[in-house]
Amino acid sequence: MQLHNFNSGPAILPAQVLEQAAAAIHNFNSTGLSILEIGHRTSWFVEVVEEAKATVKKLMDIGDEYEVLFLQGGATMQFMQVPMNLLDENGMAAICDNGVWGNKAVKEAKIFGPVTVVADTSDKKHTYLNKQLVLPEGTSYLHITTNNTVEGTQWHQYPQVNVPLIGDMSSDIFCRPTNYKQFDLIYAGAQKNMGAAGVTLVVIKKSLLGKVKRQIPAILDYQKHIDAGSLLNTPPVFSIYVSLLTLRWIEKEGGLIEMEKRNKAKAELLYNTIDSLPAFYCPIAKEDRSIMNAVFFLTDPSKEESFLALCKNKGMIGVKGYRTVGGVRVSMYNALPISSVQAFCELMENFS
Amino acid sequence: MQLHNFNSGPAILPAQVLEQAAAAIHNFNSTGLSILEIGHRTSWFVEVVEEAKATVKKLMDIGDEYEVLFLQGGATMQFMQVPMNLLDENGMAAICDNGVWGNKAVKEAKIFGPVTVVADTSDKKHTYLNKQLVLPEGTSYLHITTNNTVEGTQWHQYPQVNVPLIGDMSSDIFCRPTNYKQFDLIYAGAQKNMGAAGVTLVVIKKSLLGKVKRQIPAILDYQKHIDAGSLLNTPPVFSIYVSLLTLRWIEKEGGLIEMEKRNKAKAELLYNTIDSLPAFYCPIAKEDRSIMNAVFFLTDPSKEESFLALCKNKGMIGVKGYRTVGGVRVSMYNALPISSVQAFCELMENFS
Repeated sequence: MQLHNFNSGPAILPAQVLEQAAAAIHNFNSTGLSILEIGHRTSWFVEVVEEAKATVKKLMDIGDEYEVLFLQGGATMQFMQVPMNLLDENGMAAICDNGVWGNKAVKEAKIFGPVTVVADTSDKKHTYLNKQLVLPEGTSYLHITTNNTVEGTQWHQYPQVNVPLIGDMSSDIFCRPTNYKQFDLIYAGAQKNMGAAGVTLVVIKKSLLGKVKRQIPAILDYQKHIDAGSLLNTPPVFSIYVSLLTLRWIEKEGGLIEMEKRNKAKAELLYNTIDSLPAFYCPIAKEDRSIMNAVFFLTDPSKEESFLALCKNKGMIGVKGYRTVGGVRVSMYNALPISSVQAFCELMENFS
Repeated sequence: MQLHNFNSGPAILPAQVLEQAAAAIHNFNSTGLSILEIGHRTSWFVEVVEEAKATVKKLMDIGDEYEVLFLQGGATMQFMQVPMNLLDENGMAAICDNGVWGNKAVKEAKIFGPVTVVADTSDKKHTYLNKQLVLPEGTSYLHITTNNTVEGTQWHQYPQVNVPLIGDMSSDIFCRPTNYKQFDLIYAGAQKNMGAAGVTLVVIKKSLLGKVKRQIPAILDYQKHIDAGSLLNTPPVFSIYVSLLTLRWIEKEGGLIEMEKRNKAKAELLYNTIDSLPAFYCPIAKEDRSIMNAVFFLTDPSKEESFLALCKNKGMIGVKGYRTVGGVRVSMYNALPISSVQAFCELMENFS
């Protein structure tokens, strides 16, 4: 049976990336050693890191005012690392709480300084984005979750603000060309569009740092990672390599323009099918629907279980909605072929 | 040319582990999916974590008063995470500073509370271990680096103290049977004896926690990781799997008794060869020599460069001493076959 991998993350990766990753475990770049056995300070691995950094900068079209880091701990680590480096008692973090992840960012930031929630969308179960943001005076930075993996919303135009903008792009990084320069700090767990779990991309405008007085432990200090060229300590070597392979694949396939073309085609097909079938409905405001994660429901909730069972039987992996939301969630990251979405839409039509 | 991998970490892994890891990238456990593409909350992966935890407990011969966690960030993260969870202004961390890593542990702990260095061995360039420890009154815990990767010393009998004992075992975990129960917290980056870079083992006695009042960010809170069964957020899936494969390999080969037999044979051969050849000398006190990392020098320092060049030509990987120490360092982790040490000793004999 052919499998269709709609996992929300860790998620589907390009077949070519998997092949190259497996080959490197046997013999990395004809060194005779496995990628799992090489030192992280060898020229072999330093080249991997440098190429990965350069490719990120190229895809984002950003210059040397930014630094690219490959860290650990995922977005959950960034929820605390961002305020630890950027927020103190004299400042104010403005955070958009548009769902599970934004909410966690709020909680962690409060440990380090004052926080204002500028766009709580819980009144409508986070089925839309509140774009009327009023920032309190003295705001140090605005934090948004660019794509809400759990709720199925996505910012299609980022807020224009005159304070530093910080984006958790874990689930939509590199899904389309966008103005990355609008951001002062971007972070993303790799395990959706950028590789395997175990590494977190952080892109940071260097001028943002050095404004907070607290003593920061070395491993959590962005400046120390910058000074060490992202090799402060042993990095997650293999995960960084898989990210490089994925970045190379994005470039080779046609870059972000091509990714957007594919992602829009997949999303359009899926949302059109949902909207055309009375058995299903998507409660997300049309203008805010995510092209990465479609969240929708069965009109008759008593049929949800049998629909999910059918999906499982037909090799549709990972389509059960998040535990606090329920329903169906179809994740369509860069590596998912449109044929998988077609197969899923056929299944929906036959079920109706 | 046959390569001999004496890397200090990331380091050599068993050939069988590499084969199984590569196979799982193609098809994990006959699921039809890659290990890089499966969700971390699937029963497939939960089984991996549970088996890895159980194997750690079995190898360490510890009971349910301990919890096993697979975290990220390496020992450098633990240098700050340990004091953040266990030390406050009312306490006192006693730390043995026997080299580069212990020194970093001291620096990070000072951010969180008072620290006493109880065994600074810098007077003799860390070529021995000071075992006469006098703990100040009110000591909250004693922290030791059980094996000093850079300097080549190793604790062969752990200090007997009446405060909680914490061990950074990054470079000698599972190298031999030992009384793991003597410790209240053990941590180790996986990339030496336990797998690939990207995951950190933390074994913690649960009764140790909850005594510090500070607010701890979720990702750094041991208790929250325990409550979440080591799945607080997306873990480094592949690195944990490689650790499981390595733990299985240790068990299958005969467990820690067999590891010690092999490691002692390798270390004995190497140190005997060094001691017997006038061209080389090892300054480390005999009783404190590490069976994992042998650090030694050429009697005539002007010959060091040509010796290291010869090593390189003969496929001896990673034998240059740490940058602050110089000389030669030969790392002999569990997966290194004695044939590699034999080849290295022959090369030394021919060079003399």
